[in-house]
Amino acid sequence: MSESGAGGACPPKVLAELREFLAIPSVSTLPEHAGDVRRTAEWLCARLRGLGMDAVTLHETPLHPIVRADWLKAGDRPTVLVYGHYDVQPVDPLNEWASGPFDGDVRGDFIYARGASDMKGQLFALLKGLEALRDAGEAYPVNLKFLLEGAEEIGSQHLPEFMDANRDALACDVVLNCDAGVHAPDTPSIVYALRGLAYFELEVRTLGHDLHSGLFGGSVRNPIHVLAEALAAMHDADGRVTLPRFYDRVRPLDAEERALIGETPFSKRDWLAMTGAAALQGEKSYTTMERVGARPTLEVNGVWGGFTGQGAKTVLPARASAKLSMRLVPDQRPEDMEDLLREFLETTLPGDVFWDLKCHSLGPGAVMNRKSPFMCAAADALEAAFGKSPLFKREGGSVPVVAFFQQKLGVDSIMLGFALPDDGIHGPNERQHLPTLMRGVGVYADFLRRVGTLGARPTGD
Amino acid sequence: MSESGAGGACPPKVLAELREFLAIPSVSTLPEHAGDVRRTAEWLCARLRGLGMDAVTLHETPLHPIVRADWLKAGDRPTVLVYGHYDVQPVDPLNEWASGPFDGDVRGDFIYARGASDMKGQLFALLKGLEALRDAGEAYPVNLKFLLEGAEEIGSQHLPEFMDANRDALACDVVLNCDAGVHAPDTPSIVYALRGLAYFELEVRTLGHDLHSGLFGGSVRNPIHVLAEALAAMHDADGRVTLPRFYDRVRPLDAEERALIGETPFSKRDWLAMTGAAALQGEKSYTTMERVGARPTLEVNGVWGGFTGQGAKTVLPARASAKLSMRLVPDQRPEDMEDLLREFLETTLPGDVFWDLKCHSLGPGAVMNRKSPFMCAAADALEAAFGKSPLFKREGGSVPVVAFFQQKLGVDSIMLGFALPDDGIHGPNERQHLPTLMRGVGVYADFLRRVGTLGARPTGD
Repeated sequence: MSESGAGGACPPKVLAELREFLAIPSVSTLPEHAGDVRRTAEWLCARLRGLGMDAVTLHETPLHPIVRADWLKAGDRPTVLVYGHYDVQPVDPLNEWASGPFDGDVRGDFIYARGASDMKGQLFALLKGLEALRDAGEAYPVNLKFLLEGAEEIGSQHLPEFMDANRDALACDVVLNCDAGVHAPDTPSIVYALRGLAYFELEVRTLGHDLHSGLFGGSVRNPIHVLAEALAAMHDADGRVTLPRFYDRVRPLDAEERALIGETPFSKRDWLAMTGAAALQGEKSYTTMERVGARPTLEVNGVWGGFTGQGAKTVLPARASAKLSMRLVPDQRPEDMEDLLREFLETTLPGDVFWDLKCHSLGPGAVMNRKSPFMCAAADALEAAFGKSPLFKREGGSVPVVAFFQQKLGVDSIMLGFALPDDGIHGPNERQHLPTLMRGVGVYADFLRRVGTLGARPTGD
Repeated sequence: MSESGAGGACPPKVLAELREFLAIPSVSTLPEHAGDVRRTAEWLCARLRGLGMDAVTLHETPLHPIVRADWLKAGDRPTVLVYGHYDVQPVDPLNEWASGPFDGDVRGDFIYARGASDMKGQLFALLKGLEALRDAGEAYPVNLKFLLEGAEEIGSQHLPEFMDANRDALACDVVLNCDAGVHAPDTPSIVYALRGLAYFELEVRTLGHDLHSGLFGGSVRNPIHVLAEALAAMHDADGRVTLPRFYDRVRPLDAEERALIGETPFSKRDWLAMTGAAALQGEKSYTTMERVGARPTLEVNGVWGGFTGQGAKTVLPARASAKLSMRLVPDQRPEDMEDLLREFLETTLPGDVFWDLKCHSLGPGAVMNRKSPFMCAAADALEAAFGKSPLFKREGGSVPVVAFFQQKLGVDSIMLGFALPDDGIHGPNERQHLPTLMRGVGVYADFLRRVGTLGARPTGD
């Protein structure tokens, strides 16, 4: 714990509770943390019961449990389904963290922990917003349903089937998705479009077993060379993805949309400072905000093969592997991506190489109606709290569940959360700006109040 | 231990002693094994004392100790310096070993262990050859000096300075280097030329820290992409290394040498079976035996970056790395290689990328006189034991010490050892063919007897 006074916007009791939530290492991708993921779900159930929610239940899935709860005493007022995820990403590289990734160390205005921003912090702010409504003696202004999952960071694999099986129970007018952020502490924003995601793992094998590179090098294929050539061939000199048909279904950006994206303040200097890069780089003829928000990308997320320890080993390895993912925009279909990657590999890899492609996850992107009454309620709540109207943004990240809600339940999601772009999510030293999070508590309460005034079943037009 | 009768060529007592030697995990590149490396040196000292050697000493170096010993009672007969190394390569990938890498499991005619072939097995056979001479009641037929190092697998870094500092003590007529093998159990061979080695580690960094690939991917450089492109650019479609000046000093193969190399029996089927490759591949216009023995190569020995765990992590990593090594032929100079690799990287890597190149080791190659009396003594001893005269081979591996002996002490080395090409050295399930090793015991004794008959200071012509 840092010196008293740090994180000042946040009362000590609230901070202690947030740190308790962050302390549970709910890393969904690592089997050894399955118990921690469950403990986190149970922690949430206890909080929801404390807030007077009914039917608080853990639903088992083949992976991690789904938390459900309802409060349906608002008559014919709108029903808001709160979506969130309580799982987090792995913490490696651990040695780059300045404090333990589950310590919730507070330095200045920030709390540092895996999940502080993505997205335990946001879920926590929402719970505090509900607490504020309850403590004000108000009945909740809308009907509430909760759907909190523990497998978002690994692709929300079992959520679509859960939605199919519970369509009636999940019926709602709008989804409040807290897995979101604002542009800056003084600049509110609402994301109205998200990219899809397709995540793969490729293994290339050229040999039966590792060999001595001096005795056999130069006579048979080195799988690292083969893999490097394939990865290098995936982009051209203009930063475009070279996989045939990759751009076939991409909906072109129209002038209105490019203008809207152009409104997002962008500083090259800030972007370089935030990333530590020496230069901007990306697909030719697009701006940085278009590249990360509105254009599809392909990135290699990991690579490994051969000797990676200290010192020297003269090995010719048998195999080499890479993890790679694509971010997809309307109207690309994730399910097409595996086929076209496979085709690319078939034509690019030498015919005498053994290879295996595994698909880890496929999630569609989504674009929401920027002018619906729910979107307006969110914009108004943000404007009231921040003193200016929010930017409307397309975002580079992927929240496949937004598309699932559109497809399965026929409802849009309002992306309302209080992460900041430089929170370092998925990396070391992930953090959350506490004053912004505390502001979010009020925004959540205000948003629900405003939605409560919309009356029954307002439509999107 | 496998069923009795396995490894039949080797008496149980001898086998037990060999397994004791193999059991000490003398992995020189891993600091946690430094104590094991020393224990192995001490094990050898005890054996040398048992064989009646004088002045058995451990010489400290900044890395691992050098074992020295002498027996100088053969008057004006030739002095043979026995060179060997008692360190071994790391054992990863551990899960691909069928038995513990230090268990010395015997299956059929083979003993399986790290170092069984490279080269504890060979050193052991030499000790047994000396024991045979001693047990026959003979004085040793030549003067003997021992120089056994513990850092060969990491580049023999401190050996040249040790040679400089001990030039007189190491003076000899010829070096017997046991770090060698034969072509097949029924085909003896002598390696008369070795390739040099230059080993590097490259790190490419494009970001200050790991980032979320959805939020930042497509806007800044991915270091894995940058690394893959650089690695892919190191070879052309004809399998030639593209680094400028790489081939500048390569001595062209003349017709006599190509004919000699052509005499080595080569079976494409056996080569594919031995490597598990689906096809031969390499520099155009050269045969496989030329590619691995007489032409320089560049191989990536390891690559890593980003997320390499189970499952999916959507990270844009800050850095990516590779280990790479070059095998060099006459008259390439290892010390030129760092410069030309650096120049290649400077022109190939984008200017806005941070990179760092470390040199792990540089070792020259060597070509020996195929017609010296010592070479003839070795050839005759092999012919006597195997019933046919040996092939003379150029080899792809690197034994930099051979060049050091030429440069520092002015003597050639006789590469006489009993490893086989498919022993899997440096990989999992390294093994040694026990009948061939036992045959080697007799060859070593016979070789020394034959050298003893050459009289004082025979010259190489």
